[in-house]
Parts: sequence; C-alpha cells; structure tokens
Amino acid sequence: MVTAFDVMNAVGLVAFGTVGSLKAADAEFDVLGVAVLGVLTALGGGATRDVLVGRVPAILQSTTDVGFALAGVLLAVVLTRRMGDGLLDHPAVVLPDAIGLAAFAASGALVGVEAGVSPFGVVVLGTVTGVGGGLVSDVLLQRVPFVLAEDFYATCAVAGSAALWLVVELAGVGPGLGAAAGAGSTLALRLLAIRFDWRLPTVRLDTAT
Amino acid sequence: MVTAFDVMNAVGLVAFGTVGSLKAADAEFDVLGVAVLGVLTALGGGATRDVLVGRVPAILQSTTDVGFALAGVLLAVVLTRRMGDGLLDHPAVVLPDAIGLAAFAASGALVGVEAGVSPFGVVVLGTVTGVGGGLVSDVLLQRVPFVLAEDFYATCAVAGSAALWLVVELAGVGPGLGAAAGAGSTLALRLLAIRFDWRLPTVRLDTAT
Amino acid sequence: MVTAFDVMNAVGLVAFGTVGSLKAADAEFDVLGVAVLGVLTALGGGATRDVLVGRVPAILQSTTDVGFALAGVLLAVVLTRRMGDGLLDHPAVVLPDAIGLAAFAASGALVGVEAGVSPFGVVVLGTVTGVGGGLVSDVLLQRVPFVLAEDFYATCAVAGSAALWLVVELAGVGPGLGAAAGAGSTLALRLLAIRFDWRLPTVRLDTAT
Repeated sequence: MVTAFDVMNAVGLVAFGTVGSLKAADAEFDVLGVAVLGVLTALGGGATRDVLVGRVPAILQSTTDVGFALAGVLLAVVLTRRMGDGLLDHPAVVLPDAIGLAAFAASGALVGVEAGVSPFGVVVLGTVTGVGGGLVSDVLLQRVPFVLAEDFYATCAVAGSAALWLVVELAGVGPGLGAAAGAGSTLALRLLAIRFDWRLPTVRLDTAT
Repeated sequence: MVTAFDVMNAVGLVAFGTVGSLKAADAEFDVLGVAVLGVLTALGGGATRDVLVGRVPAILQSTTDVGFALAGVLLAVVLTRRMGDGLLDHPAVVLPDAIGLAAFAASGALVGVEAGVSPFGVVVLGTVTGVGGGLVSDVLLQRVPFVLAEDFYATCAVAGSAALWLVVELAGVGPGLGAAAGAGSTLALRLLAIRFDWRLPTVRLDTAT
Repeated sequence: MVTAFDVMNAVGLVAFGTVGSLKAADAEFDVLGVAVLGVLTALGGGATRDVLVGRVPAILQSTTDVGFALAGVLLAVVLTRRMGDGLLDHPAVVLPDAIGLAAFAASGALVGVEAGVSPFGVVVLGTVTGVGGGLVSDVLLQRVPFVLAEDFYATCAVAGSAALWLVVELAGVGPGLGAAAGAGSTLALRLLAIRFDWRLPTVRLDTAT
C-alpha cells in the first residue's frame, strides 16, 4: 500500500535530486558530476543515517529510491535547458524541497526511535537524514553549507524530529501517526519560515549591538 | 567512580564545544549553526571512531557527553558576547583544548587496542578521535583544516596513540595506565609545541633551500 | 600467490599515495600533513567502501596496504625535492594513477557483488573505492574535487564497475575474470580519455549554444 508518507518521500527524492543537480550545473560540472551530485543530495542523508545505526545503506540494496533521484536529475537538466538560471529559488523547486525535508526528517527520527537511541540521537538522526545530502553536496561544491549558514532550514528538521520523539515516546502514539506529526511540524515550520523570511539570530551580530 | 581520565574527557568535550562554536560565530553562523558546529567538533571524532570499528556511535545512546558539549557551546556564546574576538588563541581556550586532544587520542587508541586492530589502526583511531571533530567542522566552515596545515597538533595525537600502543601491547600494562601514558605524552608534546612554537618542516620549503 | 590484480592494486596504492602527497606538498602542508593526505588518498576509498558494507576497514587490520601507501608518500617527497613542481601531470604519475583507479574500482565492485547489493550498489561501491580517497583529500585541501569537475575520471570507474557487474552477474564468469574485465575496461577508458582529452559535456554550456 502506498501511504501519504511514501508519496512525500518520493516527492522529496525527486526534489533533492533536482536541487543537487541544479547546484552542480551552476558550478559547470559535466553531466556525470551533475548526476552524481543530484543522486548524492537525494540519497546521502539516508545513507549516512543507515551507516550511523549500523545498517548497510538501503540505497545499495533497493533501486526504487535511486530511480526517483535520477528522475530529479533529469528534471534539473530539462529545466536548466528550458529556463536557464535562478531555478533554485523557484517555488516549483522550493516547495517540493520542503516536502522532502519533512519526509526525510521524519523517516530518520523514526529509524532512531526503532533503534532505541537517546532523544538526542533521535534528533541527530532525523536532522542528518533531512539535511545530510545537501550538506555533503555543498561541501563537494565548495559552498559553505547553506543548511548551517543561511536559512531556517535545519531548525525545522530538528523541531520535527523532536516532535516525533515526543508523540511516539511520551504520548505513545504509533509510528504512522508519529511520522505524520514529525513530517507535519517540519513542513509547517519550513513553509512559515519561507513565507515570512524567518532568520535565527547570529551570536556575533548580537555582540555588535 | 570518576577517574582523572573522565575529568580530562569532560574538559575536552567542553573545550572542543567552545572551539567549534567560536569558529562558527566568527563565520557569522546563526545560533543553531553555532550549536551544531560546537557539538560536532566535540563529538565528531568519537562518532567517526565508533563507525570505523562497527559500533553505533556512543553519542546516539548516552546524553552525558552531549551535555558537556552543549556546555561548551553556551560558554562560547557567553564569552563572545562578553569579550568579542580573538578567543581562539586565548590560553583559557588553548589549554583545555590540549587536554581534550590528549583525552580523546588516548580513548580512541584504547578502543583500537580493545578491537584488536593493527598498530597502524590504533594510531589511526587515536588520531581520528582526537582531531576528527575539528577537521569536519573546518571542512564545513570552508577552512583548510588547521590540524593538517597549521600546527604541531595532529602529530601529538599520533605520538600519544603510538605511546599507548607501545606500553599496552609491548610492555603489557593495563588499560588505565596505558590511557595515562597515551594522554600524558599527547598533552606534554602539545604543551611543549605551544610553548616553544614548534613547527614541522614542509616538503616544499625544503625544496626552495 | 600474487596475481596480476595484486600487482595492479599495489601500483595503485603507491600512485594514489604519491598523488595525495604531491597535492598536499603543493598546498605547503608540513610533513605530517603530506603523509596523512597521501595515506588518506590511497586508503580512503577502500575504507569508505568497507564502512558502507558494514565491515571494519581492512586497513585497520592489515599493514601491507599501509606500507604501499607510505612508499607512495616517500616517493612524492623524493620527487618533489628532486624535480620541483608539475609532477601531478607527469606520465610517471598519471599512468600508475590510472592503474590504481582501475584496480580499486574493480575491487570495490567485486565487494559489492559478494555483499549481494543491487546493480546500482555495485557501481556505487566500485566508484567510491576508486575515487573516494582523492575526493576526500581534495575536500580537505579546499579544492573542488577534480573527480567531479575536471575530467573523464569517475566515469571510467562507473563504466568499469558496470562492466564487472554485467560479466559476473549476467554472463556468470568467475570473480577473477570479472575483476579483469572491470579493471581492464576502466583502464582502457581512462587511457583513451587521457590520450584524446575526452570531456563530458556540461549541462550549462549546452544551454548557451
């Protein structure tokens, strides 16, 4: 049975694949580099999560997710040739990306709950799954990782992972509802942050005041 | 029972958390970025070591270490607001950092001995545990890792890890004394290097002479 | 018995150690940094592969490979002092490097076949083993990874890994012949690409036309 969560996950894989490929195309990488960066952005977070909890990464064993990631790559190539620059800020990229962040954070946090890690570990696994792929691809592209420096982005994954832990471990709801709560709160927070251009304060700017 | 080693480890976690956060604050990251970099600097080396020997990282399972790392983050925020720049070279940061390097290198080397890896593996695990967190955070901050380029730093962890292997595997002393020997030699070497501004030669500069 | 594959692997370890060390020497790292970068370039791809399939990295347990990597470091130091700059493009470095790429890609793909991963996983493991060490060292040196941006390099590992999978899984040949097919096709492709200066198209340049 295909759940709403599966749909969100697929949307996220395509969106993350597109975002990674667009960044690589901006950096004038060749087509293989564009494909590698797209796939890595889509699948890197989940692979890191799997390695951390001692599993062989799922992406080495199944191919559905790889297909969605490659669809994202293809989409990026088509969009770039049709529309040129500036796609990274386009709503058609930003909104699916937010859905992916939400689905990935929830799936990572759920893996953490199932593996019996600490509450901090649940948040780490949710956040790594949500932002790990983008972070690695930014490092490879010699960009300061935007998840750390530029946006109300990782914060949403942290909050959503914590929400999932709260409702599953404390309120005792099942994993399906927990995933809905985690993904829902991540997505809501991210959309609000985009809409109202929320920023976290910096430590240094406060010093200057 | 709290041992001298536990105290050194806690000092190191706080110091590494502070160092990572100060670097992130210098780069004008937001408060979440500052916290993430601080925690990653404090816990990243140990997590990498655990993944290498096939364990689920301890930091996903216990929360004491996370608490110390977050204390380091908090300290960095308070210090930055009170004292401004230049804290990374301040003795109040540099000396605890040296203690952390010593404690982490010894704990990593000890994990290697217990896992039965080769002598080279013991040195790798000790060095990775000691410098891995700082290295990852430098990469994320787009800095050339200072452990590789700028200082008599990783060398101390290499020497201390080798010393631990020598006394435990060859001289047959127990792990407690071995940790003391490894941490002690790392710390002594690091303090001497700071005091006398020791530098390793470069390959290229020799060419120029 | 020492096979042709063992010889290729040893040549690759020495070559990768030399390449990593030359890059670090160019960046004016001290001798420890040069050694670390050389060893990491030689052993990093295989270690990443081992972590991905849930093994303790072989290099923590045996020392032969470390010896070959250190021989490469030593070679780089001697060559730099004798011959100065520009060694990275010298045929005496480029050709052994191609042999290493071929041997590493084949060994990684073979590990994937033995671990029973998907075809995509086989290609990922072969490519990661072949280019992972160089990629990590480029990141540490603050270079855009040349395997992604500059050359017909990773493509050869992708093609060779796919070739190995094809002949082993579909044609049913044994692992020895499979390794020969994988390494041979990687090496042939790489040498042709060097000889004729092959480039993959970029996504953006196509847009401009």
